[in-house]
Amino acid sequence: MTADAPTIRATVASYCAAFTARDRAGYVGLFADDAWIEDPVGTPRHTGREAIGAFFDQSSGMADSIELRLTGPVVAAAGEGAFPMQARPSFGGTTFVVDIIDVMTFDDTGKITTMRAYWDPAEMRPADDA
Amino acid sequence: MTADAPTIRATVASYCAAFTARDRAGYVGLFADDAWIEDPVGTPRHTGREAIGAFFDQSSGMADSIELRLTGPVVAAAGEGAFPMQARPSFGGTTFVVDIIDVMTFDDTGKITTMRAYWDPAEMRPADDA
Repeated sequence: MTADAPTIRATVASYCAAFTARDRAGYVGLFADDAWIEDPVGTPRHTGREAIGAFFDQSSGMADSIELRLTGPVVAAAGEGAFPMQARPSFGGTTFVVDIIDVMTFDDTGKITTMRAYWDPAEMRPADDA
Repeated sequence: MTADAPTIRATVASYCAAFTARDRAGYVGLFADDAWIEDPVGTPRHTGREAIGAFFDQSSGMADSIELRLTGPVVAAAGEGAFPMQARPSFGGTTFVVDIIDVMTFDDTGKITTMRAYWDPAEMRPADDA
């Protein structure tokens, strides 16, 4: 029994909300024990909740605040999910934006087992709608 | 040397245009000889240009016409690409729509080596902007 679409959509909403709120425990708790993340795609993977928590600290700490904002529907297929979003970090009162597509797999209980984030740091730009 | 972002974006634009125009040779020619596609995610893969051509015939023939329309930026990372789009099939004058996220890998020359399409047939609905 794979994670169904409503479960996947709810987990993705929690994922964005927890990261934006700097809710470390809430964020890490969305992952399975042996989950891994590759963010951005092409960089070394971080495996296990401890490594994912360390990655959260590092990425969350790179700006005064970072909003993860969905920019389109979460699509679910066969227990996997994908969605378009923006990361919107703020530094000293200026908000920047970069487009991301996240692809995730889930276990039967809805925990995230893998996450790959497609984005290019060179595409970061000042937000024109902040 | 991996495919760079401009190459990936150009190939994705050609991919959507060729499918929409029912340009079978143009579509199949975007793939490497041993490429595979999984569409939607969770279904059996079609490997090689002949199988990809047969899949094109089958999917393209399911409606009077099918537009593939990008709905957000193509994001490129480490020779891979991902993008949100809609498939918009028309049947007897009525246009339907379903949201898709495609994830692709590319070889050094910009040919598509793998494609996985995230979408759920149950989410197909009449287009309210046709």
